[in-house]
Amino acid sequence: MNRRGLLIILSSPSGAGKSTLAGRLRDWDDTLQFSVSSTTRPPRAGEVDGTDYNFVDVDDFQRQVADGAMLEHARVFENYYGSPKGPVETAINAGRDVLFDIDWQGAQQISTSSLSNHVLSFFLLPPSITELHRRLVSRGQDAPEVIERRMQKSWDEISHWDSYDYVLVNDDLAVTEEKLKTIITAERLRASQQPDLMDHVRTLQQEFEDR
Amino acid sequence: MNRRGLLIILSSPSGAGKSTLAGRLRDWDDTLQFSVSSTTRPPRAGEVDGTDYNFVDVDDFQRQVADGAMLEHARVFENYYGSPKGPVETAINAGRDVLFDIDWQGAQQISTSSLSNHVLSFFLLPPSITELHRRLVSRGQDAPEVIERRMQKSWDEISHWDSYDYVLVNDDLAVTEEKLKTIITAERLRASQQPDLMDHVRTLQQEFEDR
Repeated sequence: MNRRGLLIILSSPSGAGKSTLAGRLRDWDDTLQFSVSSTTRPPRAGEVDGTDYNFVDVDDFQRQVADGAMLEHARVFENYYGSPKGPVETAINAGRDVLFDIDWQGAQQISTSSLSNHVLSFFLLPPSITELHRRLVSRGQDAPEVIERRMQKSWDEISHWDSYDYVLVNDDLAVTEEKLKTIITAERLRASQQPDLMDHVRTLQQEFEDR
Repeated sequence: MNRRGLLIILSSPSGAGKSTLAGRLRDWDDTLQFSVSSTTRPPRAGEVDGTDYNFVDVDDFQRQVADGAMLEHARVFENYYGSPKGPVETAINAGRDVLFDIDWQGAQQISTSSLSNHVLSFFLLPPSITELHRRLVSRGQDAPEVIERRMQKSWDEISHWDSYDYVLVNDDLAVTEEKLKTIITAERLRASQQPDLMDHVRTLQQEFEDR
C-alpha cells in the first residue's frame, strides 16, 4: 500500500518569515512539492507565472471554483487566491507531501475538507508587532497606506492562530527552521503515515503461525 | 498558565527493546518521570521495590482499584498490574511528562480516560518473531514453557499495534531511540502543549492596539 502524502500548511501574517522558511524546507527536502496558488492579482516585479503564482483572470478563476477544481479559495482585498486541486491530488496519491503557503481562510477550508486527516498545519507568529512592521517597511515596495492595510490584515491573520496544530514564534529563523523539520520528520513517522507497517505485521503473523 | 505534562506510553511485546529504550529516554531527559507500576507478582532477582515496581499484595492492590487510585490496571497471567494515579497527576500538573511502560490494556484505559488529550502512545514492533524469541531465550531466566507463554502473550500484544499514535519497528536501537526523541520533541511543540503562546498573542494584541 502506498503512503499518502501530507498537506503541510504554513500560515502567518505577511512579514513573519513564511516565504524564507518555505524555501528552506524545499532545500531540505526536494520531494516536498510546493502548491502554486492561482491568483487574479497582477504579477509583481520578478514574479514568475507558474512558479510564484498561476496568474489567471477573474473569469478563469471563477470557472475553476465552479468546477470544483480549487481545494480552497478566498478573496483578499480585491483579489482572489486559490489552490488548484489537481496537482495536490497527484502528489499526495504518489506519496509526496505538499506545502501550502496560504492564509487562515484557506487553511480552514482544507482542514475541514475530505483530506483533513492528512493535514499538518503550522502558524508562524512574529516576535513583536514592531518587528512585523519593520519587516513590511524594509521591503521598500509599498506605500504607507498599503503597509497599514497589510498590518490590519496581519492582525486578522494572527487572531486565528489557535486553529493550527503547531504555532511557532519566529524570533530566530534557524531555530524555527529546525523545529519545522523536527515536526515534519515526526509527523511522517505517525502510524497513519506508515502503510508498510501493515505488511510488517502480516509477516510477523505468518512467522508466528509457522513456528 | 502552566503547561500540562504528556502521558507518554511505550508498549511492546516482551523482548522488543522497550526497557532499554525507556532507560535511554530517561538518560536523555531527566525531567521525564517514570510511572512505577504496582504489581502483585513477586520481585525477580535484582528488582528494587519502588523503583522497578511497587510490590503490593492482592488486597492492597484491589483496595487501590476500588478507591479509584489506579489510572489503569490489568490482570496478566495470574498477576495484577496497575499505574497509581497520584504521582502521575502531580507530575503532569507541574508540567513534567510521564513515561509509562505498560501493555495494550493499560494503554487503552489511559487513552480513553479524562487525560486522553495528553496521551502520546508508542508501540514497538520486533523486526521478526525469530528475533523476539531469541531475545526472550537469551535472558536465560525462564523455562521453555514460560517462554512459550510469553510468546503467546507477545502475539496478543502485537495484535493491538494499530491503536497507537506511533508504531516503530525496532530493528536498530540507535535509530529507534532517535525517532522516539524526535517525536517527543515535536509533540512538545504542539500548540496544545504551549500555553505560553496565549500570553505571547495577548502581548502582540496590546502592541497592535497601542500603535
